[in-house]
Amino acid sequence: MKKDTVAAVANTVRALSIDMIQKASSGHPGLPMGAAEIGALLFGKIMNYNPQDPKWINRDRFVLSAGHGSAMLYSLLHLSGFDLSLDDLKNFRQIDSKTPGHPEYEHTAGVDTTTGPLGAGFSNAVGFAIAERMLAAKFNTENTKIIDHFTYVFCGDGDIMEGITSEAASIAGHLELGKLIVLYDDNDITIEGKVSLTFSDNVEERFKAYGWQVLKSDGYDTEGILKCVEEAKKDACNACNAGKPTLIILKTVIGKGSPNLAGTNKVHGAPLGADEVRATKKNLGIPEDADFYISPEAKSFFEERQKELKKVYDKWQDDFKSLSSDNNFATLWDEYMKTGGIKIDESALPEFKVGESIATRVAGGNTLVKLCAAIPNFVGGSADLAPSNNTVVPDNGDFTKANRSGRTIRFGIREHAMGGIANGIMLHGGLRSYCATFLVFSDYMKPPIRLAALMNIPTTFIFTHDSIYVGEDGPTHQPIEHAEALRIIPNVRVIRPGDAQETVVAWQMAMERENGPVALILTRQNLKVYEKQDKDWKNNMRKGAYIVKDAEGAPEVVVLASGSEVNLALEALAFTNKKVRVVSVPSRELFEKQAKEFRSSLIPEGVRLVTAECGVSGGWRGFAKDEKDMLAINEFGTSGNSKDVAKKYGFTPENLAAIINKG
Amino acid sequence: MKKDTVAAVANTVRALSIDMIQKASSGHPGLPMGAAEIGALLFGKIMNYNPQDPKWINRDRFVLSAGHGSAMLYSLLHLSGFDLSLDDLKNFRQIDSKTPGHPEYEHTAGVDTTTGPLGAGFSNAVGFAIAERMLAAKFNTENTKIIDHFTYVFCGDGDIMEGITSEAASIAGHLELGKLIVLYDDNDITIEGKVSLTFSDNVEERFKAYGWQVLKSDGYDTEGILKCVEEAKKDACNACNAGKPTLIILKTVIGKGSPNLAGTNKVHGAPLGADEVRATKKNLGIPEDADFYISPEAKSFFEERQKELKKVYDKWQDDFKSLSSDNNFATLWDEYMKTGGIKIDESALPEFKVGESIATRVAGGNTLVKLCAAIPNFVGGSADLAPSNNTVVPDNGDFTKANRSGRTIRFGIREHAMGGIANGIMLHGGLRSYCATFLVFSDYMKPPIRLAALMNIPTTFIFTHDSIYVGEDGPTHQPIEHAEALRIIPNVRVIRPGDAQETVVAWQMAMERENGPVALILTRQNLKVYEKQDKDWKNNMRKGAYIVKDAEGAPEVVVLASGSEVNLALEALAFTNKKVRVVSVPSRELFEKQAKEFRSSLIPEGVRLVTAECGVSGGWRGFAKDEKDMLAINEFGTSGNSKDVAKKYGFTPENLAAIINKG
Repeated sequence: MKKDTVAAVANTVRALSIDMIQKASSGHPGLPMGAAEIGALLFGKIMNYNPQDPKWINRDRFVLSAGHGSAMLYSLLHLSGFDLSLDDLKNFRQIDSKTPGHPEYEHTAGVDTTTGPLGAGFSNAVGFAIAERMLAAKFNTENTKIIDHFTYVFCGDGDIMEGITSEAASIAGHLELGKLIVLYDDNDITIEGKVSLTFSDNVEERFKAYGWQVLKSDGYDTEGILKCVEEAKKDACNACNAGKPTLIILKTVIGKGSPNLAGTNKVHGAPLGADEVRATKKNLGIPEDADFYISPEAKSFFEERQKELKKVYDKWQDDFKSLSSDNNFATLWDEYMKTGGIKIDESALPEFKVGESIATRVAGGNTLVKLCAAIPNFVGGSADLAPSNNTVVPDNGDFTKANRSGRTIRFGIREHAMGGIANGIMLHGGLRSYCATFLVFSDYMKPPIRLAALMNIPTTFIFTHDSIYVGEDGPTHQPIEHAEALRIIPNVRVIRPGDAQETVVAWQMAMERENGPVALILTRQNLKVYEKQDKDWKNNMRKGAYIVKDAEGAPEVVVLASGSEVNLALEALAFTNKKVRVVSVPSRELFEKQAKEFRSSLIPEGVRLVTAECGVSGGWRGFAKDEKDMLAINEFGTSGNSKDVAKKYGFTPENLAAIINKG
Repeated sequence: MKKDTVAAVANTVRALSIDMIQKASSGHPGLPMGAAEIGALLFGKIMNYNPQDPKWINRDRFVLSAGHGSAMLYSLLHLSGFDLSLDDLKNFRQIDSKTPGHPEYEHTAGVDTTTGPLGAGFSNAVGFAIAERMLAAKFNTENTKIIDHFTYVFCGDGDIMEGITSEAASIAGHLELGKLIVLYDDNDITIEGKVSLTFSDNVEERFKAYGWQVLKSDGYDTEGILKCVEEAKKDACNACNAGKPTLIILKTVIGKGSPNLAGTNKVHGAPLGADEVRATKKNLGIPEDADFYISPEAKSFFEERQKELKKVYDKWQDDFKSLSSDNNFATLWDEYMKTGGIKIDESALPEFKVGESIATRVAGGNTLVKLCAAIPNFVGGSADLAPSNNTVVPDNGDFTKANRSGRTIRFGIREHAMGGIANGIMLHGGLRSYCATFLVFSDYMKPPIRLAALMNIPTTFIFTHDSIYVGEDGPTHQPIEHAEALRIIPNVRVIRPGDAQETVVAWQMAMERENGPVALILTRQNLKVYEKQDKDWKNNMRKGAYIVKDAEGAPEVVVLASGSEVNLALEALAFTNKKVRVVSVPSRELFEKQAKEFRSSLIPEGVRLVTAECGVSGGWRGFAKDEKDMLAINEFGTSGNSKDVAKKYGFTPENLAAIINKG
């Protein structure tokens, strides 16, 4: 790519971006203007992709971790031939447009992940790089590297400052993800002003300490940038399978091209204003009156570029065809690459007998082992709590720098990055992912859970130790509001099974989910496996709730319970003379979405409802008529033997019976 | 402190810890055994404190960031004379004991902060170190350093891996908090096994890159450890006001003293078992049959130590008395040191006129400026969003390495650490703190918000850009579930004012709060200041809700609205013939806690209720009888002009009126 061409593309990106933002009266011109040359080189020279097949599994991945620079990405997607028209650019940040304020996965072709919350993209990229190595280990042959791509991240100062990035960079260095290449837009400016107001890290040394290769260039030196990228790729290639991930620190000027605002925080997040737009265009040698101007040179360059890229793509398709002639390869490939929910027959899963006493985390762990045996592309791990979360799957082996066939990822004590990485693995394609920690520490990883929901991807989040029954570890480790806090995130499916048998179905439901994450909420303590009166309970549980034990005759009280409180409700029956129906509600949100007919079949009109869940009452208010009809905990727990703690907060059969009897 | 004495104290700590854990059948022996010498030196030699006055403002602070090592802390608090008896130790992890599983602030004398969630303590300590410098700048004279203490942190591998620690370390280095000294228990083991399974950071280089001094010693080399601490203190003292914070890397063996389990992950989080307890005691030269054994040497050592420490304390009291003879000093000191809520008269705060159109973030910002003028020890800042959060207080100046009198803290793009640091400043004593970001990014800082609630400290969290009205930035930046997610944390007070006048009262309520954090939920967009029909609205708002506009005659419908939806409700009146009462509910939780009489005065029995809040419906279910009676949003938002976005999700006067008219 000639220097002049780089300039033509870069200035087109600048002109398009400032026009988009000016027209929208909203947006962030600083990044696209400052980093336009880097963007031009990425799409014009560095990356392999096919705009006609934006989901091509072997494309280089691109993550704009600094998602507020979306105008740059959209400009480049348009120029390089993706399905994004000039009219789409003109609708930047308008409702129902393809060009929302921050890039959104599945919303715009060519956007590999949703970014905006800083650091999220960086962590997703680590997931991409892990997925690439896992799939390469599975599918590459001695002669054909059918999976062989790089993951490029464009990040800014905000990403570098966020803790999630530190966690993600640390594990990327540990795992020697040499094909991860991060371009850091080092422009010295944040919203409040100069970066030096808040930040004195020696970023080079910091990343070297994580085990990264760190290279540097001026952000406008074409040769310098390309040399760094070549060096980054070489390191990865030398090691073949492993190698140091690379951070390329690129010194840039925010808002470059704007004669009066470049280099200041004024250009970060607001339109330039009509006068400065004109002045900028003049400064760039672009017709001042031309809106959404595209230089002819940039246009013709990308026409040629598409042809070149097509050759690479066609070569890959040829390789793929020849590999696919091997039936084993083709079958396995199809199994990995199919999307959508996964049905696992219960015969492949563990069986638990009524009367057994077993924690749902243990039942969940046993199920996970079987699931992993049945689903070869199911991968994941825990944030250093595998023995407690019961996510040890011995057969899978660890994914390490030396063993890319391993399927267990030891995430370390890095919950936030874990969530982002698990999402990245899902987003890559070809794999399905899970991750695990204590429920109380879901607080450390809220942003990636929300992003999974927003992106409609079925990452499975395993959360064990789900209530005050945690006991001795005390209130810092006892979830109170956490199950509810997950339920209220749109599109998160929370499932809190009441015993080991329900846990197996919960896992099936998790794997069957297609369009959003699942949070499995599991106990630390043992729970008795109970008899289910509803013979169709497995199907009804998939609707969110079912009758565990009915009253003789019409019920006077219906108890809605989830998780460990189903057993409590059954035990409470010994202390009441009321006619009580006990309903297990593993997924309240799902139950609420059912047709009225189904809901009424469990909760007859007019019958008194009592709810029981060892968590906040909030979300159950739609059911019980009065706060007094709810067994809940709306305060922090306390350290002590779990039985003592449960008693202190009223989680005894006697107390639940007293609530039932009150009405 | 002689080597033999260190050994006697350390082995007593070991013996006490393993007995506590064995008796409780639960706990973490690995850390207390591995780090007993370090603990002995901290309490026996390094730190200044007074067990008789555990809240002494000039004590050295101690943060056990690896809170699971609580047995070590409790042993040392007992030995060094704090109000913690041998019986308390015997009740370790039992309900209602003073010795819960993880250390809890205000629960146990000598515990400076609640720890357990990893990294939290480290970030609190940065807050301690900031508070120390701020108070020193205020109160020290040329001759008397009345505030002059160190902050010591004991942390483990988990702390070092967590992102919050990276953020906190980075800002500590930037601010040159030289009196922060972190002892890192580098024992190579985590729950899943060897640290090397997940972690390859060069911790020394990483912390140097943050601007820290890094020193190293064997964790059992008394002289080596003390030399490091001296070096750490020297650096801080040389620079007098600033200097590098210090990380001391101490190589230890987890579970040291246990003949069969030392050095393995088996000793991290489970009792040793009776046989190994005996074997360990034998190995340590402690009577095998003696339970809760305290060596006579350790006992007598600490008796002497208390006398020495008393001299330091008495000297400080003398200095304090002589400074206090200056009335200006005494008055200011008392103002800073008083605890409890702060009443600020409205005459000191901005006035907003009915009919004005102003965003509540702007009204909040104006109020903050006045509050800071009225409350000299109110300090805080934003995570790089000060101009958007409206937390710019020009008169206060920035707290920097060169200006310790500054009161605005520029936290950088580090939300998680920001929360922990703000809590640390509150916990230190002498200051009150706030911090700020967008509401959607409250997800990045859930753990410190929860910890503030658990510790009953009144940190103020300012969250602006509170709904889909954020507009163009799109769903990654539009809160949906966030206000509700904060409300369901026990003891968090959420206040979402409806206009500028309510915002002033909201701030007063925040400052009046004594025993828990407040989250102020503020709009990005302008809101009209409305007429309040209730002349006593300011008092009633302190009860959570009040009547903004009543129906003529008995109301047929009561609309409960919060924040921007109060204006929406008032506008909806033009589209209905129903007799409607509009109630503003800035704090739903507070309203729910009021006596029935007050609640009925706003919501008469039997009248139809409609709720309106631009967030999830969840928590409002206790009020509206049917989901159809709630104007809410239970899905993600979208990028676009805020008016278009609001319309898309039904947030128009016409649509709210349609809901009102339906019933």
